[in-house]
Amino acid sequence: MKTYITQPTPKINSLLLIGAGLIGGSLTLALKHAGVVRHVIGSGRSATVMDEAVRLGVVDVAVYRDTPEFIHAVKTADVIVLAMPVGQTRAVCELIAPHIQPDTLITDVGSTKTSVYNDAHAALGDKIAQFVLAHPIAGREVNGPAAALADLYVNKKVMICPHAHNHTADIDTIAALWQATGANVYELSLAAHDEIFAAVSHLPHVLAYALMNHVADSDLSTDKFAMAGAGFRDFTRIAAASPEMWRDVCLANKDAILAELDGYLKHAQELREMIAVENSDEMLELFKKASSKRLAWGKEK
Amino acid sequence: MKTYITQPTPKINSLLLIGAGLIGGSLTLALKHAGVVRHVIGSGRSATVMDEAVRLGVVDVAVYRDTPEFIHAVKTADVIVLAMPVGQTRAVCELIAPHIQPDTLITDVGSTKTSVYNDAHAALGDKIAQFVLAHPIAGREVNGPAAALADLYVNKKVMICPHAHNHTADIDTIAALWQATGANVYELSLAAHDEIFAAVSHLPHVLAYALMNHVADSDLSTDKFAMAGAGFRDFTRIAAASPEMWRDVCLANKDAILAELDGYLKHAQELREMIAVENSDEMLELFKKASSKRLAWGKEK
Repeated sequence: MKTYITQPTPKINSLLLIGAGLIGGSLTLALKHAGVVRHVIGSGRSATVMDEAVRLGVVDVAVYRDTPEFIHAVKTADVIVLAMPVGQTRAVCELIAPHIQPDTLITDVGSTKTSVYNDAHAALGDKIAQFVLAHPIAGREVNGPAAALADLYVNKKVMICPHAHNHTADIDTIAALWQATGANVYELSLAAHDEIFAAVSHLPHVLAYALMNHVADSDLSTDKFAMAGAGFRDFTRIAAASPEMWRDVCLANKDAILAELDGYLKHAQELREMIAVENSDEMLELFKKASSKRLAWGKEK
Repeated sequence: MKTYITQPTPKINSLLLIGAGLIGGSLTLALKHAGVVRHVIGSGRSATVMDEAVRLGVVDVAVYRDTPEFIHAVKTADVIVLAMPVGQTRAVCELIAPHIQPDTLITDVGSTKTSVYNDAHAALGDKIAQFVLAHPIAGREVNGPAAALADLYVNKKVMICPHAHNHTADIDTIAALWQATGANVYELSLAAHDEIFAAVSHLPHVLAYALMNHVADSDLSTDKFAMAGAGFRDFTRIAAASPEMWRDVCLANKDAILAELDGYLKHAQELREMIAVENSDEMLELFKKASSKRLAWGKEK
């Protein structure tokens, strides 16, 4: 995995943010704070949310889709940031595609990358070269522009996932943008990105949802929930996450998640058989391996 | 599930503690603190541990197995507490069986109950009537007598699991003992206990071990561990737990764990198929159910 060396900080005259929630809003706040961007135009579907985004200074002005102001913003933007849910990538790219100028850079913040690339490519055609995909690894338990923080990305990780059509100078500019927010920037291929996050983020969410439903469906569910303690609490914490968002992630990163889930289920099934035949030694071996990996990982974090 | 009303506090002249670790040691400290017990004799296999237990006041005196002092302690004990790993139940019960007097009560602290009952019954025969099984739901990340705390059980849950041969008065005495430590005492059948803890404690441990091994076995494991964040951290925290202890639990509570694991794997497989065929609506339904259950449970805790 490549780590980016610090790039010269770029100067952006006009940035168009599509989707002014926690993730996109924190990016524009950070860029304004760092003096990187002069003017931020925000676009979103809810007037209430956009009014709030303007009031909080997350964006300077709001524009709405299918208006001349929106088209003007696309035409004059130096950078367009896609920060709406990944499921809307194709529709949004179709909206902006005809108006994107040759010197405009496009980037995104989506938590899956192959699907965003495919959807964007289908809509943008050759202009896909201007789209540098990125994914900041940060979040909060609250959402919307009011949750946005100028320092959300300080010391956080950001993945940049270049594709074959990208130009090095453009990749460097997007890396520099993220570095200006205080983030540490890494480079990953689209496929590696999707496999890695399928394994350490998407899969645990699916497994935690399954455990909650398994316990809830049991005859003794009331007693089980009453007796569940700290281990259960930590294990299932992520099952409280947004069902809509995780449904979208499962659809958008389907192939990688299925591969991880199948690999995981093989490990679980293997442990099941060891318990069934009381293979004490191999069970201990596998538990020891898992425990030592977890202890080592915990020390590094 | 029955909750015990507060019982009159018993007076115990002589208590024999077999296994002077965190769980047993915290019980004797609490009982001494509450003025319930006059004299605590400790038995263990390691002289170093027992010396420490005496020095810390967890026990008043140490005796060693296969000595006349041990036999004398068994013969004169009002209460014998089995607090060694559950895998040793049969061997320890065979040691004490010939010397147990008719008015002596036996109890334990094991985290599985059917296996303890079966092992004890095999060794104790009719004297199983004097054995009231219990399980305190408390722990720390450290072990041994130095980890024992007089207030470990304050406001914690303790399960009492009576069996067909027990007398009500004996069950009440053991309930009263635990209430004297500050714990809230509940009654569960052996089978319900084992099913409940298989679901909310043992199963999550097995699943977390499997995830650590699945990620560790991957070609991208270094990058995956490097990129894993807070969700992964919480989900896998219990995978750092003692491999030996959890191997023993898996063997001792095998049937209940296999039943829970099979039920869980069905839920996981069902979600897998929904992702594979992109059944967006049903997936969202299941995620919503899990999320709302987790949010509701989190509020009660």
